[in-house]
Amino acid sequence: MKDQLIELKRRLMEIDDLNAIAALLNWDQSTYMPPGGAAARGRQAATLGRLAHEKATDPAIGRLLDALQPYADSLPYDSDDASLIRVARRNYERAIKVPPEFMGRFFAHSAGSYDLWTRARPANDFSLVQPCLEKTLDYSRELANFFPGYDHIADPLIDFSDYGMKAASVRAVFAELRSQLVPLVEAITARPTPDDACLHQHYPEDRQLAFGVNVIKRFGYDFRRGRQDKTHHPFMTKFSLGDVRITTRVKEDDLGEALFSTMHEAGHAMYEQGVSMDYEGTPLADGASAGVHESQSRLWENIVGRSLAFWQHFYPELQATFPDQLGAVSLDTFYRAINKVQRSLIRTDADEVTYSLHVIIRFDLELDLLEGKLAVKDLPEAWRARYASDLGVAPPDDRDGVLQDVHWYAGTIGGAFQGYALGNIMNAQFYEAALKARPSIPDDIARGQFDTLHGWLKDTIYRHGSKFTATELLERVTGGPLDVGPYIRYLRAKFGALYGV
Amino acid sequence: MKDQLIELKRRLMEIDDLNAIAALLNWDQSTYMPPGGAAARGRQAATLGRLAHEKATDPAIGRLLDALQPYADSLPYDSDDASLIRVARRNYERAIKVPPEFMGRFFAHSAGSYDLWTRARPANDFSLVQPCLEKTLDYSRELANFFPGYDHIADPLIDFSDYGMKAASVRAVFAELRSQLVPLVEAITARPTPDDACLHQHYPEDRQLAFGVNVIKRFGYDFRRGRQDKTHHPFMTKFSLGDVRITTRVKEDDLGEALFSTMHEAGHAMYEQGVSMDYEGTPLADGASAGVHESQSRLWENIVGRSLAFWQHFYPELQATFPDQLGAVSLDTFYRAINKVQRSLIRTDADEVTYSLHVIIRFDLELDLLEGKLAVKDLPEAWRARYASDLGVAPPDDRDGVLQDVHWYAGTIGGAFQGYALGNIMNAQFYEAALKARPSIPDDIARGQFDTLHGWLKDTIYRHGSKFTATELLERVTGGPLDVGPYIRYLRAKFGALYGV
Repeated sequence: MKDQLIELKRRLMEIDDLNAIAALLNWDQSTYMPPGGAAARGRQAATLGRLAHEKATDPAIGRLLDALQPYADSLPYDSDDASLIRVARRNYERAIKVPPEFMGRFFAHSAGSYDLWTRARPANDFSLVQPCLEKTLDYSRELANFFPGYDHIADPLIDFSDYGMKAASVRAVFAELRSQLVPLVEAITARPTPDDACLHQHYPEDRQLAFGVNVIKRFGYDFRRGRQDKTHHPFMTKFSLGDVRITTRVKEDDLGEALFSTMHEAGHAMYEQGVSMDYEGTPLADGASAGVHESQSRLWENIVGRSLAFWQHFYPELQATFPDQLGAVSLDTFYRAINKVQRSLIRTDADEVTYSLHVIIRFDLELDLLEGKLAVKDLPEAWRARYASDLGVAPPDDRDGVLQDVHWYAGTIGGAFQGYALGNIMNAQFYEAALKARPSIPDDIARGQFDTLHGWLKDTIYRHGSKFTATELLERVTGGPLDVGPYIRYLRAKFGALYGV
Repeated sequence: MKDQLIELKRRLMEIDDLNAIAALLNWDQSTYMPPGGAAARGRQAATLGRLAHEKATDPAIGRLLDALQPYADSLPYDSDDASLIRVARRNYERAIKVPPEFMGRFFAHSAGSYDLWTRARPANDFSLVQPCLEKTLDYSRELANFFPGYDHIADPLIDFSDYGMKAASVRAVFAELRSQLVPLVEAITARPTPDDACLHQHYPEDRQLAFGVNVIKRFGYDFRRGRQDKTHHPFMTKFSLGDVRITTRVKEDDLGEALFSTMHEAGHAMYEQGVSMDYEGTPLADGASAGVHESQSRLWENIVGRSLAFWQHFYPELQATFPDQLGAVSLDTFYRAINKVQRSLIRTDADEVTYSLHVIIRFDLELDLLEGKLAVKDLPEAWRARYASDLGVAPPDDRDGVLQDVHWYAGTIGGAFQGYALGNIMNAQFYEAALKARPSIPDDIARGQFDTLHGWLKDTIYRHGSKFTATELLERVTGGPLDVGPYIRYLRAKFGALYGV
């Protein structure tokens, strides 16, 4: 038994190595690769992906997992070995169900689709990608059907990023969230809009970066086990538990851009840096789900980074960094500026209150498409209608409408978006639990101390990696299931005070 | 036949992809990887190396090569397909002759040896590494003996980097070179030593880097297909013909350090960037040998970069970049400073005249060790004796003696050094041929124009990649064999004028 476990771990580590190397190829491509490297890099990534897939679907892994199952069954559910075998089996069974031939076809299609999208969006021309997107819908259904026995055809697609979540229950939770958010947005936007001109002065890049680095160091992001570089789109990536990197992007006329994206990605990275070193090189060295990951990035970006307590400590430092720009701007003005709520068209620019509505629209449209209730050709109109009803604004064109996000044009329809809103719901649940366990957290934050919060998160969430599913984590940490209550309470308290609603 | 060639190329491209990815892992480790990433990176590189070795030794390649041999034999020697099959066979036969079990043992030994060396050198304690180096000598012999039928036991080791060169002929050529260099060094160092204090003022890093980048752009290094970063030790690395990167290191109190290392690495990189794009992803997309590679780096660094013609054009630009430091320094003073010849201990700091002597000492000692004429325990003393006789200085300690280069402590004894001096000999041979074919080159250089030289090098050397061996290239380009004549003539002309000897 012991030999088989060692052999399983050896094979899993090899797969982990190849996946980490693939992540490095991608990081380099996004950060430093010269343009001339692109063609070969695509080929190299494909070669590596093929090898990783061969290793991940080696029948020897299936035999080892079968042989080890009695051992796993003899252990407590949450023991490291039982969890390793459980998660390895989940990954293995997922990998072997999808034929490589399909993956090849789908990747080729996705690459072509992405390429079309990069031209369709600037041209504001949905018709350029429509036939391709219809094919993507077919592919998404084909992929889902490799996992028969689902309740909803989106379930297998959701499983890829948010394992265990079901379309039906997510839809119900999102419907409840939407019913609460729509009137809240209406009430807030009926009030005077805060002036955020103070954020849109000239902020030199080097000082923005230095300030952001200082903030996330204080949060607890460990630069000995990570680094920050600049990319077109910010992201977090991991090459090992000792090398978890983030990227950011700076706009010199928008102070919020780099600052909050840095906090956001640092939240993702602190989660990965916090995974138990015992899990290095195993499938447990990962986040629990896209939603739980997003709960951590948004917790540090929003619940901490956009809080009054945080800025009570950091605003004087920010003013000292940018005396010409902010010396005469009050904390109150700045705090209102970074928490400006508005009906907007672009998800990634949305504030805390409206953000989930953008996500829910996409999630619902995905389900409608997969169910056949909505045709791809009618998608732009359906998008506009939902924006009008939920957010009170309709995009004047498709560029800032149905063409705005890359997800559907470079992946599946289904499973692409729910994690963002699940993250919002869960971050409030986790934070409420944190406050119950460690009531000093807000005061600590106001003193620029994050150890209490970070320590609690590491202990209750981070160290477990992917040992528990999102649902299991919620149950362990909050004692209950996914629940929009804490998130709504949080928004009402914060934005009620800000907007007097 | 055609299908088999396509299949061979597919397999070779896969091997090339894995080798390129391994190079990226190494580049990242040297440039940006945070310290926490080291442990996993070593494991990832080992995993990748194992996979690349499996692919490179797949018997299917041997069968394809056998099947394609009649086709290759039917083609002209220098046709692309015949050359591809020839070089692929050379690589394949080399790879299959060394058992993976040996490579595993040897890599583990080398890692340990390197680690010991990093401690032994600062401690100036050869005894720390002596037992390890004895083992390295055994490993080197064991490795050579996987290639029976050699004339000299060093031949297989030399083949790894300078294919086709033989210990006996290299030794003879080096003996001749040494007999010419030793009196030349004596004559030069009997003259007054130029003052190079002008190079040792404070030179801010950013301006040094900008000046170097400008120079190598003008040389013809293509930044759309490359980039420069900073590392502890400068190097060139290639991920594809479209992505050939260099690194440099800056000393703010030594203007020569970054400037000449940048030119040197750019010379390596321009060679790789100049390989025919038809060879992308094949074993032909490589330099002909370590010696030919070094001939190009040293040609651009020394024959061009330390020439009076070059500085007639660039010195005013350099003065404008550093007006406080160089405004009052004449071109003559500067030119003498960058060509200061001195009896020195450190190979990598050596000037053009003494450099080859450092290399020849190491080469001769390698042969003596392999032949059993010299015991490892007597190496420090043998080193000192040769430095005293050849360079007229003896290292006061082992730190700057036998412990100074990493090569023997992280690789084999044998084959490690000859390329550096072969490069010096060949760069003069190639440059003499270039001048014969394009007499305007010196005038062009004095006008800051490098297209004539670069174009000739691309056409006669670079584009062929590794299609020809060094010996074949010399024959094609110069009409003769390896010959120290041009190098000695070049040194006598340049340094004769400088030192009046």
